[in-house]
Amino acid sequence: MADAYAPERALANGQPRIDFQTAPARWRHWKLVVDGDVATLLMDVDEKGALFEGYELKLNSYDLGVDIELADAIERLRFEHPQVRVAVLRSGKPRVFCAGANIRMLAGASHAHKVNFCKFTNETRNGIEDLSESSGLQTICAISGTAAGGGYELALAADYIMLVDDGSSSVALPELPLLAVLPGTGGLTRVSDKRKVRRDHADFFCTTEEGVKGKRALDWRLVDEVVPGSKFEERVTARAREFAAKSRRGAAREGIMLAPLSRTFTPSGVEYGSLSVEFDRPGRIATIALRGPAVPPPASAEAMKALGSEFWPLKLARELDDAILHIRLNEFDVAAIVFKSSGNPAEVVAYEKFLDANKDHWLAREIRHLWKRVLKRIDLTSRSLVTLIEPGSCFAGTLAEIPFASDRSYMFLGRREGDNKPPATIALTAANFGPYPMSNGLTRLSSRFLANPSDMEALKSEREKLLEAERAQLLGLVTFAPDDIDWDDEVRVFLEERASFSPDSLTGLEANLRFAGPETMESKIFARLSAWQNWIFQRPNAIGEEGALKRYGTGQKPVFDTRRV
Amino acid sequence: MADAYAPERALANGQPRIDFQTAPARWRHWKLVVDGDVATLLMDVDEKGALFEGYELKLNSYDLGVDIELADAIERLRFEHPQVRVAVLRSGKPRVFCAGANIRMLAGASHAHKVNFCKFTNETRNGIEDLSESSGLQTICAISGTAAGGGYELALAADYIMLVDDGSSSVALPELPLLAVLPGTGGLTRVSDKRKVRRDHADFFCTTEEGVKGKRALDWRLVDEVVPGSKFEERVTARAREFAAKSRRGAAREGIMLAPLSRTFTPSGVEYGSLSVEFDRPGRIATIALRGPAVPPPASAEAMKALGSEFWPLKLARELDDAILHIRLNEFDVAAIVFKSSGNPAEVVAYEKFLDANKDHWLAREIRHLWKRVLKRIDLTSRSLVTLIEPGSCFAGTLAEIPFASDRSYMFLGRREGDNKPPATIALTAANFGPYPMSNGLTRLSSRFLANPSDMEALKSEREKLLEAERAQLLGLVTFAPDDIDWDDEVRVFLEERASFSPDSLTGLEANLRFAGPETMESKIFARLSAWQNWIFQRPNAIGEEGALKRYGTGQKPVFDTRRV
Repeated sequence: MADAYAPERALANGQPRIDFQTAPARWRHWKLVVDGDVATLLMDVDEKGALFEGYELKLNSYDLGVDIELADAIERLRFEHPQVRVAVLRSGKPRVFCAGANIRMLAGASHAHKVNFCKFTNETRNGIEDLSESSGLQTICAISGTAAGGGYELALAADYIMLVDDGSSSVALPELPLLAVLPGTGGLTRVSDKRKVRRDHADFFCTTEEGVKGKRALDWRLVDEVVPGSKFEERVTARAREFAAKSRRGAAREGIMLAPLSRTFTPSGVEYGSLSVEFDRPGRIATIALRGPAVPPPASAEAMKALGSEFWPLKLARELDDAILHIRLNEFDVAAIVFKSSGNPAEVVAYEKFLDANKDHWLAREIRHLWKRVLKRIDLTSRSLVTLIEPGSCFAGTLAEIPFASDRSYMFLGRREGDNKPPATIALTAANFGPYPMSNGLTRLSSRFLANPSDMEALKSEREKLLEAERAQLLGLVTFAPDDIDWDDEVRVFLEERASFSPDSLTGLEANLRFAGPETMESKIFARLSAWQNWIFQRPNAIGEEGALKRYGTGQKPVFDTRRV
Repeated sequence: MADAYAPERALANGQPRIDFQTAPARWRHWKLVVDGDVATLLMDVDEKGALFEGYELKLNSYDLGVDIELADAIERLRFEHPQVRVAVLRSGKPRVFCAGANIRMLAGASHAHKVNFCKFTNETRNGIEDLSESSGLQTICAISGTAAGGGYELALAADYIMLVDDGSSSVALPELPLLAVLPGTGGLTRVSDKRKVRRDHADFFCTTEEGVKGKRALDWRLVDEVVPGSKFEERVTARAREFAAKSRRGAAREGIMLAPLSRTFTPSGVEYGSLSVEFDRPGRIATIALRGPAVPPPASAEAMKALGSEFWPLKLARELDDAILHIRLNEFDVAAIVFKSSGNPAEVVAYEKFLDANKDHWLAREIRHLWKRVLKRIDLTSRSLVTLIEPGSCFAGTLAEIPFASDRSYMFLGRREGDNKPPATIALTAANFGPYPMSNGLTRLSSRFLANPSDMEALKSEREKLLEAERAQLLGLVTFAPDDIDWDDEVRVFLEERASFSPDSLTGLEANLRFAGPETMESKIFARLSAWQNWIFQRPNAIGEEGALKRYGTGQKPVFDTRRV
């Protein structure tokens, strides 16, 4: 398994790290054209714009760099273009919609990169679906040419798939016959659970390299409409108008600008406006210290809009998202992320009330939905998650979701000797009882109190109280509450122990224990589908020197261990 | 990954294959003592009774051989002891309940064996739960001593867990800290979803080698009762009486004998009484040919009982189960299982009606439940499943579940030239609409027609009709229906293609496409949990030469690749 240990390839742009920040002016692979309430999102991948050295992005194939731009485009549709009610996803290239994830990139990537690349692309596609479900911005995928593998998986994220009926345009999931891996970006789950394709049809489809076209694609529910080439443009336009007309999205005229994040990378961490990341590399710990608001909430929704991306809850969410992604893809040696916070919890509660009071304002709504996605991103991060709730912290409302998202939390009981900071508190608000479901569909508190839903009901009467450690522990909100005498040792021993365990087994353990209760299509993608794909991404039949991924395009056939496991 | 390719170790009994058949007189590890309506199932593992050479089964640790006996005991409780209403699971050894799966066995087993060992032990534990849920035979696990790893997972399958409060008896899932793997037999899922242990408590519990005892075990929901040592026997007896009194199990006085299966192994297959298995080894195909009943159903429930395990539906279910297990664990090179049948479909329908008419008879009920479990076993078998519905076949009712369980089915359209067999038919009965849910909780037809539940409703009016190919295809019951001209080529090309694909990717594909729709605790065990465990079972941190499984007990610490994936 030399591959799993291989250092990541050099980035093509010469930078020391993968950057998750971009902006339309810097996009190389996508164009977003907004025309009234209809946007066109054009995929036109720059062959020379690969993230890593060593491969070209032919035929609209993609790597993480392409997907970072797509994720950015989706966020901008949310915040910068609130008037858009339908987005049409198309290719800027003739005869191909998208050839899927770049095979050379996959063949040369480390296991850790492959797994985290798939996780990110999955989150982006879930984000497209959330755009429709939560914000009413519907998506149409107009396929002319081949939509293969990740290309078809991208289409599957749309609300409506149109396919040209020209005798050659097709949809396909050729991963298994071609590469001996699975469609890893939700394809199998969306075929079975979203499109509800009959399982034997799905079996045929997913084992057929050339895919399916025309009437059969329609009959088998793989697409929603097939259209003769001569009528395609006209029909796409008509469908866009039709979807725009029935969209639930409000009629906000203008959005806010998502300004570039201000970040400073240092050898020991990253400094953002509202949080900092600090690496203890020998201890394999990343500490994310969140800062509460510096000023009270604005006086009105208009004032919030005027603040734009400087509005504290939005700023913090974007920065936190970036920090998590940075750790995930650039700092593989981090065993645990420790969350801390500082600030006035009452001020945080004031912000929560402000967002609730303005919950019908499109921007407040989008901010809640962004936090929902950022918190899900935390749930799905394969690092041990720990929250330290210390004197002077402000884990209230939305921020209180962070200890609930953590594998364990420690809350300081009483005061530190010689420290005049106020005792640690935790405060619940309406934000903890609905707007932030996990990917299993439950809130973090519901997941936590699965055994006794009545405990959770009782918590509702505790809203907006600043709960100190003893009370918080009694209510089941935190794991342990050591006092000044025990705190340092207890936390240190725990973190040292965590860093001593096998990282793989922690990944598997946490992926199981974090998601009690029901499964949704989304959680199935990250569980059943991704776990199997990760397994296959380890198997010699795929990644060995004679495996299908390595031999693809060499003219040599792969050699398989034929034993079924 | 040399390990994955390693030949299986020699069996300790000198036999050429693992045998899933056993009987109480041959058990080496369990004792079943029946006293009125209370049974005691005593685990007393014979150290020298390991399945493979090279390790001893110390401290009530187990391997597949021990679990085959447990599975046999559970079946005998169902069929031979219908008067039993509660079973108490205990250890026959002092100071230890069960130390879990044997670590030396795991360290030396091939990946394929480990994965299929875990699958079987999971099915056995699900069978214990089904015994309670479907047959009302409740289980109490009485723990005195240590229940660690698979030992606690066995306890988790019980309805009620009692733990001695003696300062040392404990429950533990030490797999992660000790071995760098997961508790792989449902432990994590049952902790989170059945016992509903709070996730941070579960995190602590599953990372703590020494486990949890006494009051904390109770407070954290890990056990249902802690009892002082002096009162333990008395309390266990009282609980057994209490559970027996409230059991829903009927009051049948005497059971039937499960006679040994008659089987003949030949180099090319296995001959059973009601089916045969034939291996095409170059083609990597196992064909299971099922035979319909030779005689009409008996005249009465009493006559059925007199037939005992010779009653055709019971005989076929037991033989089919054995055949599937034989292929799973002994014939790893089989890529696809092809199901065929021969017989009179009207006779099969007659048996279905007989079972329905006697559905309140305990034996008819147990036979339906056995078929439910055998069909689930088929669903969960990681081989491509294909049904060929040919002239002269009898896929009706219960047997029609087999094409629905298959990844693909081919139905012969019309007759074969020069063959006077009746055209292929398929027949639905009440058996296809309820009694055989998959592990996702849906019937196979509901899973199949997820897109249009109304199609499924329409099928109800087709019950008990012999549907020929054209009609069956129109109704969506079969995948393809080639005629005499195309049949041979189409089937051959498909099977050759299937055998040419990477077995791993097929395993992953089928594990996803077979289980559309909801997830249950049971399906979560086979999806989220098992897929992660399989991944970990491939990782050098667990199985590499410096990994935790290999180094356990050597005094050397494992060396981990510290990167999180």
